[in-house]
Amino acid sequence: MTYTNCWLTYPLLVDETGKTIAVSSEFTGPVADSALEELKAGFGGMYRRSVASVAGEADIALKKNEKIHPEGYRVTAGNGKVVLESGGERGMLYGVFSLLRQLQLSGGSFNDFSWQQDTAPANPLRMLNHWDNMDGSIERGYSGSSFFFENEEVVVNQRTKDYARLTSSVGINAVVINNVNVVKAASWLISDRYYGKLRQMQEIFAAYGIDLYLSINFAAPMELGGLTLSDPCDPGVQQWWKEKAKEIWQKLPGFGGFLVKADSEGRPGPFTYGRTHADGANMLADAVAPFGGKIIWRCFVYNCRQDWRDAKIDRPKAAYDNFMPLDGQFRDNVILQIKNGPMDFQVREPVAPLFGGLKHTNMMIEFQIAQEYTGQQRHVCYLMPWFRQVLEQDMCVPGVPSRVADLVSGRSYGNQNCGMAAVANTGNDLNWTGHDLAAANWYGFGRLAYDMTADPLDIAREWVQLTFGSNAQVVDTLTAILMDSWPAYEKYTSPLGIGWMVSPNNHYGPSVDGYEYDRWGTYHRASHRGLGVERGRTGTDYCRQYNEPLCSLYENVDTCPDELVLFFHRLPYTHRLKSGKTVIQHIYDTHFEGAEMAEGFLSKLEAIKNLLPEDAYDRMHQRLQHQMEHSKDWRDIINTYFHRISDIDDEQGRKIYD
Amino acid sequence: MTYTNCWLTYPLLVDETGKTIAVSSEFTGPVADSALEELKAGFGGMYRRSVASVAGEADIALKKNEKIHPEGYRVTAGNGKVVLESGGERGMLYGVFSLLRQLQLSGGSFNDFSWQQDTAPANPLRMLNHWDNMDGSIERGYSGSSFFFENEEVVVNQRTKDYARLTSSVGINAVVINNVNVVKAASWLISDRYYGKLRQMQEIFAAYGIDLYLSINFAAPMELGGLTLSDPCDPGVQQWWKEKAKEIWQKLPGFGGFLVKADSEGRPGPFTYGRTHADGANMLADAVAPFGGKIIWRCFVYNCRQDWRDAKIDRPKAAYDNFMPLDGQFRDNVILQIKNGPMDFQVREPVAPLFGGLKHTNMMIEFQIAQEYTGQQRHVCYLMPWFRQVLEQDMCVPGVPSRVADLVSGRSYGNQNCGMAAVANTGNDLNWTGHDLAAANWYGFGRLAYDMTADPLDIAREWVQLTFGSNAQVVDTLTAILMDSWPAYEKYTSPLGIGWMVSPNNHYGPSVDGYEYDRWGTYHRASHRGLGVERGRTGTDYCRQYNEPLCSLYENVDTCPDELVLFFHRLPYTHRLKSGKTVIQHIYDTHFEGAEMAEGFLSKLEAIKNLLPEDAYDRMHQRLQHQMEHSKDWRDIINTYFHRISDIDDEQGRKIYD
Repeated sequence: MTYTNCWLTYPLLVDETGKTIAVSSEFTGPVADSALEELKAGFGGMYRRSVASVAGEADIALKKNEKIHPEGYRVTAGNGKVVLESGGERGMLYGVFSLLRQLQLSGGSFNDFSWQQDTAPANPLRMLNHWDNMDGSIERGYSGSSFFFENEEVVVNQRTKDYARLTSSVGINAVVINNVNVVKAASWLISDRYYGKLRQMQEIFAAYGIDLYLSINFAAPMELGGLTLSDPCDPGVQQWWKEKAKEIWQKLPGFGGFLVKADSEGRPGPFTYGRTHADGANMLADAVAPFGGKIIWRCFVYNCRQDWRDAKIDRPKAAYDNFMPLDGQFRDNVILQIKNGPMDFQVREPVAPLFGGLKHTNMMIEFQIAQEYTGQQRHVCYLMPWFRQVLEQDMCVPGVPSRVADLVSGRSYGNQNCGMAAVANTGNDLNWTGHDLAAANWYGFGRLAYDMTADPLDIAREWVQLTFGSNAQVVDTLTAILMDSWPAYEKYTSPLGIGWMVSPNNHYGPSVDGYEYDRWGTYHRASHRGLGVERGRTGTDYCRQYNEPLCSLYENVDTCPDELVLFFHRLPYTHRLKSGKTVIQHIYDTHFEGAEMAEGFLSKLEAIKNLLPEDAYDRMHQRLQHQMEHSKDWRDIINTYFHRISDIDDEQGRKIYD
Repeated sequence: MTYTNCWLTYPLLVDETGKTIAVSSEFTGPVADSALEELKAGFGGMYRRSVASVAGEADIALKKNEKIHPEGYRVTAGNGKVVLESGGERGMLYGVFSLLRQLQLSGGSFNDFSWQQDTAPANPLRMLNHWDNMDGSIERGYSGSSFFFENEEVVVNQRTKDYARLTSSVGINAVVINNVNVVKAASWLISDRYYGKLRQMQEIFAAYGIDLYLSINFAAPMELGGLTLSDPCDPGVQQWWKEKAKEIWQKLPGFGGFLVKADSEGRPGPFTYGRTHADGANMLADAVAPFGGKIIWRCFVYNCRQDWRDAKIDRPKAAYDNFMPLDGQFRDNVILQIKNGPMDFQVREPVAPLFGGLKHTNMMIEFQIAQEYTGQQRHVCYLMPWFRQVLEQDMCVPGVPSRVADLVSGRSYGNQNCGMAAVANTGNDLNWTGHDLAAANWYGFGRLAYDMTADPLDIAREWVQLTFGSNAQVVDTLTAILMDSWPAYEKYTSPLGIGWMVSPNNHYGPSVDGYEYDRWGTYHRASHRGLGVERGRTGTDYCRQYNEPLCSLYENVDTCPDELVLFFHRLPYTHRLKSGKTVIQHIYDTHFEGAEMAEGFLSKLEAIKNLLPEDAYDRMHQRLQHQMEHSKDWRDIINTYFHRISDIDDEQGRKIYD
């Protein structure tokens, strides 16, 4: 079992062999042990200095301070001394990881190092959702197989710990290890069959301040309990879950709770019994409440058997339509987990209007760093610029601060059960994420979830430096590639917010009509006259789910942002965008530009070949080479499709195939 | 193991219990035993009469007559007496099956029966190719699993025999039991691991006049023999095959030979070693020649990694380009097996030009009754009218009769090693063919291969009557459905010979652009201005592969038959066909008509519900119901696609979705 350390590399900075670092700590227990171990690894690696625990005078003093957030920290460092205070052990551990990061980024000797920070996490919950199956496969996994499961067994080994280190180092405090589609053996994770191994994993996670969560099968009372139904209003079902919860927390003390995909894409749920999502979620919430458990209930509910001929149903409306009527009906330990957009992790979507709708319900945002629709970790696509845009979007709720960042962090309504989740992008590949550059999304998501004001550019630079060292050319080059990657991917794939022009099922590669006549509600309806779906009042009226003035902004084609204009409107190819270009010329231009950018990534990488480890270079080169070729496929297929259908030539006369 | 008897039903016609039928026979051995057994089954079922072998005066006399073809027969029946003569046991058995068929069709008592026939098979080889895999799956199988293989073992049981009876009853004399894509265990069929079971199967087949053939792996010398190469010009490889052939015929005396898919869609072949197909085929031919073995070499060779942007490569040209230069180089026991069309079993294609090209090479035609592209045995699609059209096509070879029927039967050049093959449509479903009506293709193919002048309508009526009895309403209704089924399928799927507008991989259901930007060389290149590929001299020049005047007929858009016009030409939607309709109006009209026809099939079936066995009715009803709905999907998706791209409205103002 070999694998890289990703950004926890601790390369030698200054050889200060012989000078021990004395560390005092007011914290004890597994998390304190982890912190000390990490300090040893960091100082050993970066300075060849050993670390000793001391009781009194110390170089690094880890102190308790109840005034500081238990997951926050205050650091003062200078003249070879560090004082790190926190209200809790997690904050202390995060401070230690930050300290080591700052040391590495500073590059100099420990004695010259000077740093101050006083911080607390923006989001209570900062979560990864792994879609790992118990047979070892990963749904939408692009980095090898699962390191959590194999052959229907839970796997616990050194990699479990290193996963926890990496994840904790960026401030993630909760992890769901199994796929939201809970089938077969996975239904039995909440049974004696797996508690033993899960307890081992949980202890490792706990030592890094990570709460273990599990996805559960809503039909578990039938599948595990032998009951004849799973009706949330049935007293027998309620009792079964109460006893099950008691059992779980007995076997797994400190367990976090359940993630639930119910009545979604064929998964069981309360609808079967004529019950609401609130009935379903509250029943579970009541069962886990005595143990401080949380129920995270996904809002990815829509009609996945739509007839494309039916232009009245509009899939983006589904989450709002399903959940708005239930606002205020959920228990306080229920959190609705809402995908960032109303569709499904496209390269560009508007923000899901439900965020601006719900006022009396706990909400989390669900992002996806598994690049299902954004190049599947074969294309580089650094998503933090996109996520940051989403978080900055003001949902225009009257009377409260209502950027998405405010809403999901609890700032708007004072919620505690809220935060950010991301569908994870890891697997058992040597480099964890398939594409070495994809690790920037794992790193970046944690950093952004902890600090929603963080600049994606800073995060990128930081990650590059931590991973590949401080050579300026390397840092500048890879940071530039990362920062250009999402814009490039958007350009050569899906223009103006239209989305979905991908091959069905595998979601990789261009297929303009791939979903057009299918049952998934994802249509561009391109014809000779134009394309897009009209979602204003003359169309599906989806716009009405947004608060004013957002609703009008989107509805009015003159104010609707270019990048979303085909999401909200059906437009002729000759429509002139705010950029001054026509829709068709925008399509051609962006596709030529995007493929050129992808080609540029490759040559940029080649220019720093000698500055990178050979194996990492080879891996990245192979993928960027593929990306370059594949981006040309995207360019040519999209351009040809729209040239064929529109019969309008490229103004610049570039090659578009017939 | 229950399954139907298909057309060998032998229902009670007249109860003549007590009157024994005396049969004398000049034939002995397993085939003669089969004939007697079948007579017993037939007379027992249809007349409740027992059958007795006698030496002298007989009701039915089976006589040897060397003047008659060994697979032909001469029958005179009347006044309760039948004299059946043949030059061989196979002809005698075919005569017996014909006799029983005629008796059932006549419907009256044996004594009133009168019939005369003098016939011989049109084709030397009348063959089924099963694409069965040894794990029990069937490539392009739509009728359940294999009854030849299961769990990497050869299966021999009662069904093997009933398969042989059904197959022999329509005159098939050769069967390949395993998939042309020979991988894994199937490579080992020609080894001790399987000879025992194969011998059992072969004996059953032989008793019904069927020769056993196997598909082989061209790389067998490496996979089985441990050689380092499979170069057909390598003496070691040649020797290996010679010894292998000796071994096979020792273990399986009477074995037929090999079917070979080489250098096709990724299968190994002589190209690896810079050798030609002739080198490869002749090497095998020399190995099997001492034992009378045949090598059937498939011509389905094309570039399956084409770039859609490359408009110069034209897949239909591939077989001709690959094999014409080798004409005359093949041994006499090599037979090139050529698919009926230059593409791949589409609902409509021109005849493969190779048939009109090769003059010094044995040829067989390969049809497909597995309905891969024609509804997959969920849609009814009786293919004999189509096959008959193909056989009647004159390839215009100067100086010889050159209808396809002449060419493949050996009439044109006096070949003996030639004939017709079909990719089979059977599986272990209760009714053998998934759709009950699909058995008409199994039946019909055999009948047509034996007699290429047979009228598909007669074959259909005959099959219906044998399968479902003689009620006139049943016979008329089901025959009408069968006869309309191919035209209907063509109408609601692929217009004017364009083909390929199917979902990739599974080849089921409409997807106009499904293959458009893929690597398979199957493009319609539809744009706002028109569609089709120009294959005349201004285009890919594919037409030039046909002899004159066929070449000019196809090349001239004014003489090219409507049904193939988009195969040969790129045309604007407003082009007026010989029918008087524009291309676009033809598309709309045929799609509305085809779906209406499918709807008609269902109501026609419903009208005879009470006249059919309940289980057969239910199976057919379920499939015709699906076909009706699916044909509307086809109609709407194709019409919408072309309405969107052409921007031309239906003249009749029918509903086309936006």
